[in-house]
Amino acid sequence: MPKKIRLEKQVLLENDRLAARLAERFAEAGVFVANLMSSPGAGKTSLLEETSRRLGGELRMAAVNGDLATDRDAARLRKAGLPTELVNTGGGCHLNARQVTDAAANLDLDALDVLFIENVGNLVCPAGFDLGEHRRVVVSSTPEGDDKPAKYPVVFHSADCVVLNKMDLVEVTGFSTEAFRAWVRGLRPDLVILELSCRTGEGLDAWLDWVRRGVAEVRERPGRSK
Amino acid sequence: MPKKIRLEKQVLLENDRLAARLAERFAEAGVFVANLMSSPGAGKTSLLEETSRRLGGELRMAAVNGDLATDRDAARLRKAGLPTELVNTGGGCHLNARQVTDAAANLDLDALDVLFIENVGNLVCPAGFDLGEHRRVVVSSTPEGDDKPAKYPVVFHSADCVVLNKMDLVEVTGFSTEAFRAWVRGLRPDLVILELSCRTGEGLDAWLDWVRRGVAEVRERPGRSK
Repeated sequence: MPKKIRLEKQVLLENDRLAARLAERFAEAGVFVANLMSSPGAGKTSLLEETSRRLGGELRMAAVNGDLATDRDAARLRKAGLPTELVNTGGGCHLNARQVTDAAANLDLDALDVLFIENVGNLVCPAGFDLGEHRRVVVSSTPEGDDKPAKYPVVFHSADCVVLNKMDLVEVTGFSTEAFRAWVRGLRPDLVILELSCRTGEGLDAWLDWVRRGVAEVRERPGRSK
Repeated sequence: MPKKIRLEKQVLLENDRLAARLAERFAEAGVFVANLMSSPGAGKTSLLEETSRRLGGELRMAAVNGDLATDRDAARLRKAGLPTELVNTGGGCHLNARQVTDAAANLDLDALDVLFIENVGNLVCPAGFDLGEHRRVVVSSTPEGDDKPAKYPVVFHSADCVVLNKMDLVEVTGFSTEAFRAWVRGLRPDLVILELSCRTGEGLDAWLDWVRRGVAEVRERPGRSK
């Protein structure tokens, strides 16, 4: 095996070891953990802002926010009432289990119902790194085009839920919802697609229900089912 | 030095060696080479389609197109009259100099005025890999939000030109052109920003002039100035 591939394998094995420990810790605390991945600007932060505003009175939530630089998204989340641990990755193109372990140590997991992990804006690299999460969410947005599931199959294939954001821009962007759905079905026929707009609020209820279901499932069976 | 960092350094040194050879080959052929980087769906392919349609009678152009999977963008470029070499990277999150060397071997560089390299849709990893290009172009788009230069500083800092696409969506997305310009100026006060819309054609002339200037400069001084 070439040296580069051997080392990449070692890095992934080490990540898997830490992710398995994280998953145990999350199960112990009974906290539902969702890892959000997307292109830059698809709307992960907007989705979490709306979630915090709408579910804040009902569920105890917090976030780990990964960003190359700045605390802009973390500040937005905190302003929306979501306690947030910021991880600045420097040049790093994804969050890894070590960073989430360190960030989670600053949160009282036992006092939480939900922990959102907002990954670095990148539709490629985050897919390769298990963070101990119960569920993976890919946030896609209509201005990116309806063929993204075809062009970035790995991250969509690894998802448990696809949020299609910016539905209010479908017409001005010429986005075909049918084509998008067909590409997703081609990869994973059973994958849930939630069409919504964080700007208008349209469709958000289905997303909030998806979060509530996650919380209920983890209360019943705290471990990872996958 | 930890083993991982040492190996990453080796990979980058090997890439730099191949990129330097590519730069020599491009200078020898007198072909102007621009490396286009962006988030998924920002409009790299649309920009090259329009460029091919509008400059095809005037300049001899070709493209190397990097994509994780599918030949969708390459097919679009060929349909727009641009001879295109496709590089499918599998899981790879950026193009490297080895891939461009192999792709360029299938093109008659001496018969070209311009070679566009359309990188993988990713605002992080492509910035680290020199491809022997004369110029780097970052394509950003209004729906991604006006703070992308702040949040992805490395790729913007490495650019010679920023194309701000989807200007027709400024109002519906609430994008602040002033804020975007201020973030770019904060990183690199001299960086050219070309505001345009591939959909409406607004602002494309300034981009075509930028390409023409690149061709003229390489005819005068074929090597890399930076």
